[in-house]
Amino acid sequence: MNTTLTERILGGDVRSAGRLMRWVDDDLPEARHELAALYPHTGRAYLVGVTGNPGSGKSTLVNALVAHLRASGKTVGVVAVDPTSPFSGGAILGDRVRMQQHSLDRGVFIRSVATRGNLGGISRSTPAMVQVLDAMGFDVVIIETVGVGQDEVDIVRLADTNIVVTVPGLGDDVQAEKAGLMEIADIFVINKSDQTGADRLLRELRTMLHLRPRDAATEWTPPVLKTIAVRDEGIDTLLTNIEAHTSWLSAHGARHQRDRTRAQQFVRLIVTEALSHRLNHALASSDWQSTLDALLARTQNPHDAADALLNAILEPR
Amino acid sequence: MNTTLTERILGGDVRSAGRLMRWVDDDLPEARHELAALYPHTGRAYLVGVTGNPGSGKSTLVNALVAHLRASGKTVGVVAVDPTSPFSGGAILGDRVRMQQHSLDRGVFIRSVATRGNLGGISRSTPAMVQVLDAMGFDVVIIETVGVGQDEVDIVRLADTNIVVTVPGLGDDVQAEKAGLMEIADIFVINKSDQTGADRLLRELRTMLHLRPRDAATEWTPPVLKTIAVRDEGIDTLLTNIEAHTSWLSAHGARHQRDRTRAQQFVRLIVTEALSHRLNHALASSDWQSTLDALLARTQNPHDAADALLNAILEPR
Repeated sequence: MNTTLTERILGGDVRSAGRLMRWVDDDLPEARHELAALYPHTGRAYLVGVTGNPGSGKSTLVNALVAHLRASGKTVGVVAVDPTSPFSGGAILGDRVRMQQHSLDRGVFIRSVATRGNLGGISRSTPAMVQVLDAMGFDVVIIETVGVGQDEVDIVRLADTNIVVTVPGLGDDVQAEKAGLMEIADIFVINKSDQTGADRLLRELRTMLHLRPRDAATEWTPPVLKTIAVRDEGIDTLLTNIEAHTSWLSAHGARHQRDRTRAQQFVRLIVTEALSHRLNHALASSDWQSTLDALLARTQNPHDAADALLNAILEPR
Repeated sequence: MNTTLTERILGGDVRSAGRLMRWVDDDLPEARHELAALYPHTGRAYLVGVTGNPGSGKSTLVNALVAHLRASGKTVGVVAVDPTSPFSGGAILGDRVRMQQHSLDRGVFIRSVATRGNLGGISRSTPAMVQVLDAMGFDVVIIETVGVGQDEVDIVRLADTNIVVTVPGLGDDVQAEKAGLMEIADIFVINKSDQTGADRLLRELRTMLHLRPRDAATEWTPPVLKTIAVRDEGIDTLLTNIEAHTSWLSAHGARHQRDRTRAQQFVRLIVTEALSHRLNHALASSDWQSTLDALLARTQNPHDAADALLNAILEPR
């Protein structure tokens, strides 16, 4: 009974993990001590990113992936990053609904991260949630994001294998986005592939991948796969491709580079959050209100005002 | 012939404006001087934000808005924020295609901002592009974004009136996102409203708006409108609603508050970019590489590493 929170989390205690995650959500200083204590026990989980538009069915796909991984004996943690506002409570509600499917299974843990409208909310919480699940000993941790903004692209950089989910029929605007996501995708999935336009989308994606400058000898070639997650079709093939990518990373010494990128990204997210705190503090000062008055009177310009603000942030505390 | 670049831009010279915008894109130091000189001439344009998912038809909607505004004698600048990677060239290409419709019209200027994969790329460029178009004397400046990530939400805060575009049939995932966008929407548009599910979406949005805590006496109630942009349907009503929101802002003294918010947001974006530069500089140092080695060996933890990095950033240069 006299065990520490860290020990209980390392022992896989879900309640204790949930407690620490709430501390992280609420940005309590106690969280830092616990996360530091857990850190030496991280680095064992395999991290899979799943990114897709709203409407792509990526949550259904993640649920299917979880079921297949469990069937093969692997334990799975899921961090669902959901850019939702606090008043809707959408993320939490969605969580509960999704948890039901796996609620009797101790080998699954699903946690949402909402932004709460704060700059850096996602950025701060997500790596910490991943770290907790990793330290608890989950074999696979899935990070699910909408993946359009820079915040989410930053998060996706935490993963070993990144899956980008698209669907047929979203229109031409998607072209541009696909191009952006192409840089982070290790595997493309066309979900809802029974819908009209799936084959055209498949050809388009393969053409875009072909046009991309890429050294086939040193770079992984992302496969383009079809799934119908709601009918559990194509999930086995997706898992086979995740394993193939894992083997490729190991064979090409790229796994270590991903570890390094991830560690750096993790720290970068903490630093960005700290800088954001300092910035908000400076913006709340009376000095800044005077500068703002001068800006509106057009007697000051934004770049000089920015210099003044930057100096306020860089002052030692 | 001896006029300065600033003078030529203030005179409405498109070529000079394009030149300054390229300087901004390339982050050249010359851009700062020009932007400072233009700043006293800004604050006259009315800023309209148009935010929507890929596939919502927001570009078509913006084109229709431009045509209607032109018909009423107003000049219009458009800044299209496009989270596209450099290799696709998607943004630039899309620009050219879209420009054709208005290419003989000197009263329209359309410019894309791509992220180029850089943190803060959108954030830095967009306010500057808006400032240039404002100083050139365009009556209305439209800022078009995908609007999911924090970067884009930050940009949307620059606008006087924000239009959020949705479409029927994107599935339940969209619920959460709609909730997030609800906080920034002054007007909701259901585009492609001839598609199945438009009326259900209309009811859902109205219900969500009704559930939102809001003081009807002091807060604007966002209307929910239907459009079919590709057939030019509902655009007049949309314009009437934009005008109604403009009048409401003036009548409630809220226009001044938006000016203040915008000025602060503008400076915040410049500062964020400067901090990001310092962070990248610190991450390129040999000190940081040693810290990263210790992190991977688990002899250092991310929060202590973050403190070290933060100190490096805050050092005076």
